Amino acid sequence: MANNKKRNVIVGQSGGPTAAINSSLAGVYRTAKDRGYNKVYGMLHGVQGLLEGRYVDLSEHIQSGLDAELLKRTPSAYLGSCRYKLPGINENKEVYEKIFDILEKLEIDCFIYIGGNDSMDTIKKLSDYAIVFGSDIRFVGCPKTIDNDLALTDHTPGYGSAAKYIGTSVKEIIRDGWSLETAHGQVMVVEIMGRNAGWLTGAAALSKSEDCDGPDAIYLPELPFDIQAFIDKCKELLKKKASVVVAVSEGIHTADGKYICEMDNDPDYVDAFGHKQLTGTARYLCSVLAAEIGCKTRAIELSTLQRAASHCASRVDILEAYEVGGAAMKAADEGDTGKMVVIKRLSDDPYQAGTEVKDVHKIANDERLVPRNWITKDGTYVTNEFITYVRPLIQGDVSPIMVDGIPRHLYRKGFQDLL
Amino acid sequence: MANNKKRNVIVGQSGGPTAAINSSLAGVYRTAKDRGYNKVYGMLHGVQGLLEGRYVDLSEHIQSGLDAELLKRTPSAYLGSCRYKLPGINENKEVYEKIFDILEKLEIDCFIYIGGNDSMDTIKKLSDYAIVFGSDIRFVGCPKTIDNDLALTDHTPGYGSAAKYIGTSVKEIIRDGWSLETAHGQVMVVEIMGRNAGWLTGAAALSKSEDCDGPDAIYLPELPFDIQAFIDKCKELLKKKASVVVAVSEGIHTADGKYICEMDNDPDYVDAFGHKQLTGTARYLCSVLAAEIGCKTRAIELSTLQRAASHCASRVDILEAYEVGGAAMKAADEGDTGKMVVIKRLSDDPYQAGTEVKDVHKIANDERLVPRNWITKDGTYVTNEFITYVRPLIQGDVSPIMVDGIPRHLYRKGFQDLL
Repeated sequence: MANNKKRNVIVGQSGGPTAAINSSLAGVYRTAKDRGYNKVYGMLHGVQGLLEGRYVDLSEHIQSGLDAELLKRTPSAYLGSCRYKLPGINENKEVYEKIFDILEKLEIDCFIYIGGNDSMDTIKKLSDYAIVFGSDIRFVGCPKTIDNDLALTDHTPGYGSAAKYIGTSVKEIIRDGWSLETAHGQVMVVEIMGRNAGWLTGAAALSKSEDCDGPDAIYLPELPFDIQAFIDKCKELLKKKASVVVAVSEGIHTADGKYICEMDNDPDYVDAFGHKQLTGTARYLCSVLAAEIGCKTRAIELSTLQRAASHCASRVDILEAYEVGGAAMKAADEGDTGKMVVIKRLSDDPYQAGTEVKDVHKIANDERLVPRNWITKDGTYVTNEFITYVRPLIQGDVSPIMVDGIPRHLYRKGFQDLL
Repeated sequence: MANNKKRNVIVGQSGGPTAAINSSLAGVYRTAKDRGYNKVYGMLHGVQGLLEGRYVDLSEHIQSGLDAELLKRTPSAYLGSCRYKLPGINENKEVYEKIFDILEKLEIDCFIYIGGNDSMDTIKKLSDYAIVFGSDIRFVGCPKTIDNDLALTDHTPGYGSAAKYIGTSVKEIIRDGWSLETAHGQVMVVEIMGRNAGWLTGAAALSKSEDCDGPDAIYLPELPFDIQAFIDKCKELLKKKASVVVAVSEGIHTADGKYICEMDNDPDYVDAFGHKQLTGTARYLCSVLAAEIGCKTRAIELSTLQRAASHCASRVDILEAYEVGGAAMKAADEGDTGKMVVIKRLSDDPYQAGTEVKDVHKIANDERLVPRNWITKDGTYVTNEFITYVRPLIQGDVSPIMVDGIPRHLYRKGFQDLL
């Protein structure tokens, strides 16, 4: 910050990818340029890549307005992501010294990190370090997660597009079930992401409309899952209809904390943050239903697609992600550090929302779950309050830029040499 | 056909649903009305439902141009489907007598059946019976299958939309893999429908473009699958890149005919046509890779979505499905029976195609596979000829009619009482 002359910005992406995370990147870039910064660097694979000296000059990648539009329509972290957990300052000061050496070498004024809970932990630690050791660099977080589990913000960019994809796909799956001959009952179990928070799974209810009954039951991870009650529910449903569709979170678990998917899978794989890798919940439940009821079953995991389906993105989500990126850059430019931008909802209908800046110390690692009163009493569906909350976030489309029949993304030029 | 006065038409849908099968239904309805037929009945759940006296008057369902447009955008069989296999005439004449009694009671002149190989077998048998027993009713088949495995036609309606969804989704999955940190190699195995024919799995190559490398390997069911060669290929690929994406058909099998998925699943479930229910190919291969290479893996089944994703339909496909429905109705109106409409391609670029009428006896139960010379020599990819063939079929979009952020379908009014 010598001579008040603006120097450079660096931006990174972290955690699980979304369909909107690159729109935030485009927002950061545009606002940094508008506010007169010189270079905007992008760290490759977040702080982990930065520590290895891997970064690019974003102006070599976003060379035109068309490039920016393509970037907003490109799923997954353009810069690459990481799940690197920064050690405590007392545990390993050398890592911090190395990061700040690199940032000083690059003449960085502002460090923007786009990510979820774990990424905000990184912002918190780096901003604390900067304050303690007298660095002028500002660290601001830009929220991102399909899981929608960040505290203090009304919702997170990335969630709306995932919710729209889930609502659309579940509706198509329900309709597919209608084609079935009635002689054989069938249960389709749709497995949706969300380790502890049921925001994504609840979005299956968006399929309910004048032309669709919606899923027949929805099980969120916020409540204990009772396998016998689930079997009984499916039995009841099969008396009334030939094709039953149930949405379940990958994270559902019994009252004593045992994940349903663990009943199918071993060994448990644990990632760098100590999170369990969950898979096979729907598959396990289908095997139980086939054995107990004898009905036809189909396990459908929405898997990677629910976080990567840019072709089905929500316009509200993509535009908000862009705005939030810009707001994070603006906050850092205006001197904020140790902060995260949040979205504040002003009204549901007409939907209005704006951004605010919050202290990241109040956010990090604090998971926001679906409130109990947004789940029905019997625990098998979400309430109208849930729908009223999520409905505005899936509105509008972002037309893909189609080339030869397939959506075009922004190519990562020359990245191969750096990866 | 007493007094040459046109009476009624009945139309049914059979086999696995697609994103385009209802567009053909709309085409049949429109042409029947244009050609002066009185009622257009729709059998519910195909011949099986007809035998139980279940049918609707389609004019109560398609009441406006908007309804027709919604129907064209509605996935899965609007009328319900079946997998009912008509017995041979010598095996069970009573079934035929019952069907023809119902058809006479409904004063049917034309019977249109929209389906795949098994459905064309139904058209063949019913038209044979009609000729032998002196009925004037004409029976014409309208091709439909995402599998694209019908003989004599250049391609089948439903394939183009499924191919577009697969190309789009595989591209998004590949991009999702790019976000990964480079320290750990990962193989994602995408499992795609296609029991014996690799048309759908080959469509994964459509993701290859200026901004995407495409999948790293593609395994079709036309060639024997060698697990050791697959492991070696993945090992080689992981030396060059952090994220490897492989597309496999659900129907891949070893040289001695053992399905890969059978190595994971038992017991074998066999449907009414004696087809094996395949699932778990990707899952099994991932477990093998994890054990043999120790890499991170992810099994992704495109599952039901690849045949139901109307939101990502191909315009060429939806319009052709509509035309083919109309052409089937026209053929029956003009006296054809025991025939199926096929698509004849006139040129690849610019793409031009028209319809023709073929003898259904030459088609039924004859599977068309991907030619050997459209698969690379080493059997791990499709050739440019394959791409040139499929590319025109995925062109253009059919904008979903969005209501509250989710695509609207045509509701099935009052069907519940009949189901």
